[in-house]
Order: sequence, then C-alpha cells, then structure tokens
Amino acid sequence: MNDSVVITGSTGFVGSHFTTFLLKRGFNVHLIVRNHPNELNLEWNREQVSVFIYDGNIHALIEYFKTVSPKFVVHLASYFVAEHNSDQIDKLVSSNIQFGLHLLEAMKEAKVEFLINTGTSWQHFENSSYNPVCLYAATKQAFESLIEYSIQSLGLKVITLKLFDTYGENDKRPKLINTLSKLAKETEELKLSPGEQMLNLVHIEDVCEAFFMAMQHFDRMSKPVHEIYWVKHANSYSLKEVIGIFEKIHNCNLNIVWGGRAYRKREVMTLWMSGSNIPGWTAKISLTDGLRRIDLKKWE
Amino acid sequence: MNDSVVITGSTGFVGSHFTTFLLKRGFNVHLIVRNHPNELNLEWNREQVSVFIYDGNIHALIEYFKTVSPKFVVHLASYFVAEHNSDQIDKLVSSNIQFGLHLLEAMKEAKVEFLINTGTSWQHFENSSYNPVCLYAATKQAFESLIEYSIQSLGLKVITLKLFDTYGENDKRPKLINTLSKLAKETEELKLSPGEQMLNLVHIEDVCEAFFMAMQHFDRMSKPVHEIYWVKHANSYSLKEVIGIFEKIHNCNLNIVWGGRAYRKREVMTLWMSGSNIPGWTAKISLTDGLRRIDLKKWE
Repeated sequence: MNDSVVITGSTGFVGSHFTTFLLKRGFNVHLIVRNHPNELNLEWNREQVSVFIYDGNIHALIEYFKTVSPKFVVHLASYFVAEHNSDQIDKLVSSNIQFGLHLLEAMKEAKVEFLINTGTSWQHFENSSYNPVCLYAATKQAFESLIEYSIQSLGLKVITLKLFDTYGENDKRPKLINTLSKLAKETEELKLSPGEQMLNLVHIEDVCEAFFMAMQHFDRMSKPVHEIYWVKHANSYSLKEVIGIFEKIHNCNLNIVWGGRAYRKREVMTLWMSGSNIPGWTAKISLTDGLRRIDLKKWE
Repeated sequence: MNDSVVITGSTGFVGSHFTTFLLKRGFNVHLIVRNHPNELNLEWNREQVSVFIYDGNIHALIEYFKTVSPKFVVHLASYFVAEHNSDQIDKLVSSNIQFGLHLLEAMKEAKVEFLINTGTSWQHFENSSYNPVCLYAATKQAFESLIEYSIQSLGLKVITLKLFDTYGENDKRPKLINTLSKLAKETEELKLSPGEQMLNLVHIEDVCEAFFMAMQHFDRMSKPVHEIYWVKHANSYSLKEVIGIFEKIHNCNLNIVWGGRAYRKREVMTLWMSGSNIPGWTAKISLTDGLRRIDLKKWE
C-alpha cells in the first residue's frame, strides 16, 4: 500500500504521531491545517509533506483535493472543550461540523472514496447508543448525521474510530498524565475528585496502529457504509488505580487530595461497553509499559 | 393558556400562518427574523408582536431571550434546498444547525423549558429510522443530535414535529400546488416525472392545529425528553392522483407531459410509515376541500 493520504489535525497529538507513522511507511501525506501561524511549526520539513492552509473557503479546499487526488482522508481535527461557554459555540460548529462537511463535499468533487473519521466514547454516556457527555460530543454525533448523507447519496465508505483516552510521548495537551508528570517534580498539592471514575488509556503507538488498520479495513467493505469501531484497551482502571501505577513506576508519592473537588456534573464514571475494536487490532502496550516511557526529566 | 411564545421562521409559509393563529388566541408573540430588509414586510403590525433581528450574534440573542422570557420556543426557520451545490453548504450549516444551537443556548441562559422543533419526513428515505433524502434533511438530523445534548444536560423538553407536504392559502413557495394553479391559467406544457411518487399534503390550518396541540402536549411530559411526531394526513395520493383531483375541482385540463422528465436521483416514492401523529390531532381538511380553497383568480 503506497498511496496518498490527506490528514486533518496533524498539529495535534494523534495527528502528528500518525503523520510520522505514515511518512515512515512511504505514504504521500498531505496536511490540511488552520491558518494560525503558530500551528505551522510542523515537525516535518516541507519536502516530506504538502501543506494546505484552510481558511474556511470550500472552493479552495475542493481545488486542493482535485490537485492532490488522495486515496484516503483521515479526519483528526477537532475542537475540544469539556464544558463550553456561549463564546465557544461558533467554534464548535465551524471546527467539528462545518469543516467536516467541507471535507465531504471536497471528497465528492474529487471522487475520493475513503474517509476515516474520529469520534469519542463521550458520545455514549452511561453506555447509551447515544447520550453526549457534553456539547463537544454532540457536535461529533451531528457530524455523523452528515456523514450518513454522504454514504447514502455519494457512495462514500466511512470508518469512525471512537477514541477513549490517549497518552504517550510528546503529548502537549494539559491532560492527566502530563499533570501527574509535572506534579511528580513539585511539592504542590493537587485536588482531585474521589477518583472512582473508570479510564481507558491507549498508548499513541497503539492508536496509530488502529488508524492504519482502519485504512486496510476498507478493502473488506464492498459497498458504501459507515462502520464504527472502538480504539479501546482491554484493561480499564479507575483514576485512583492509574495514579497508583504511575507512583509505583516513577517511585514517587504525589501530593493528591482525594475528594478535594467534586465530580463534574456529568462525570464519565463507567465506560462505553457495547462496541468492538477495529477488526484485527488490539492495544499491545500495557499501561505500566506505557507510563514507563514517560520521561519525567523533561519536567524538571 | 396565555403565554409568551418565541417563533422563528415567521416570514415563511407555516410560520406566518402560525403567528396569526397564536395572535388570534391572545398569545404574546415574539418573532426572531434574519436581517434581510425584504423579510421585514411582516403581516402584523409592530404593536401586535415584538421583533428581534438576529444577525448571528449569540449574545444579543441571549439578552433578547432574557428580556422577553418566553414560555415556548417554536423553531420553524430553516433553509431548504432539495439538491445543494457547494455554495449553499455554509448557509445550510448556519441556518439549520448553528442558529438552532444559538436558540438552545439562549433557552438555557433564559431558563426556557419548552421547544417545538420542525423536522421533515425526508429524514426517513425508504421508511428508514434515518436515511436523509438530501443534505437539507441531514442538517435537520444533525440538529436533533444537538437537541439531545440539551435534553440530557440542560433538562429541556422538546417536541419535533416532522412535516410531510404543506399547502394552503397565501403560499408563496414555488411548490406543486402553486405550479398547478399557475399552469391552469396558461397553455404552456409542464414536463413531469411519471408521477407515481406518493405525496402527503396537509392543509396549513391543520398544520397550525398540530403545532398548537404540541404546545399543550408539554403538560404530559414529566421529565426532559425529545418526542418526535408526524404531521401527516390519513390519506396519501400519488402525484398523478393529486393532479387529477386538482383538475376535477378546478374544472381544467392541465397540459402535463407525464414522463417528460426523469425522477430525481433520490425521489421519495413511498412515504415514511413508522411514526405517529402528535396525540389528539388528526388532519381534518381533505385534499378535495383544501384544493377547493385555492383561488385560481389570483394567478390571472
């Protein structure tokens, strides 16, 4: 397989790793990025990738798609906010719905058949077929409604991979593992909820393998359809357990005040159960092994 | 029941009739209109209604909601296009998704509990639980995904009424009955498909009753939920039959070339069957009676 792939969200955690993953395997990679100067410090040089700066203009995007004529589109861009305020609504719509719809239209015009879309387990609060934890998760579901149109009317084949938690090297997001790594080098206290909520952490190397598996899975799809799969580790842990493992591996004692703050209003206590991973894939890296790879020195 | 209602889409066919309907019954009616000068030729004088010109600013909308503090929101505004082109995508998103989301946010901020949303039978191609006929129908479904968030997280109560076809007096839309009325006064020929597709036409007076019934139905909803109902006539007719009835009533012979054009790519041949009307409501006006009310003289 040596084909051309368009990737959105390549400046993010999963996107940047997956771009590197595909380049190593000889794919032609085309990045669609937003027009923010600070996002253009790409990790790859311009000879390795082509870069299109998307400014919201659908016609320019269509022309780009016609020029690069990709085989696959991997849509990883999204705007995440756990508890939104009114000012963030328009960005949630433009990033998570409108941009995606522009991609679908560009795929139609350029006759591109395969889309990998990224969803979230947060669309499935309390193991529901659909119950969004937050507006972010609802915009993901809304986009899936639009995908359905593309399948029925335009003949696209789509795989949505639903992510749980992801972690690994070079993660710049202010998420749990980074917070812990920082805390291990400080004496400050960290107030957390009682910590009984379940987490499913998948290492970025496994996540990249799942996306790659999805690209190969299209060969098995004989007609236009939307297939939805997990990217989920076999082992889940409570927040308390995760921190226990972290402390053991890094031989530290974090100054955590359990119950120092309340659970979120819609805290995800139990994980979405009714689904299955992308066929042929299982997460290989245990949480212990994954956490061992985290280099605490960089926080000193 | 003498309460305050916010209506969107009051410049459209259903919206303008329903505004008149509510004014006659003594409701305080607040209209949200888009900032197009030609839309401001309202049929009601400014003493009867309050008018808010929405220009896309969510904060101004929130302030308006806090000021008028409505009991109900009736969301009839939408942008319809049967077969879209790339230029229409942004308007489909802003009108059918973003504006709706602004309404939900304004309802949250102003603590408004009851929303009547308007859907379309075109979300259910070939009697599917969801299969959109066109992108317009898909945007309606996408908005329902966002509504779900409002119910689960904000405690809203929502009724979506799914319209089939509507018709009646003062219809300015370029739809079937108007086309026929015009044709009856001309000798031109009209090329139509073979005409076997089924239609369900509901007279505007019945449509208004259905929306009013929905407002009363909220009393029976004890918890936040999204209930979805038809606004459907007991009798459906093929396009050929509808035109036969029209010709008989108006004693004319329309110059129609049956099969003169092909069916649309995704023509709705059969109607969505798996649903039910809003409880307590049935359409009272037969197609014969409804078509009799159409005044052909105005087309002379």
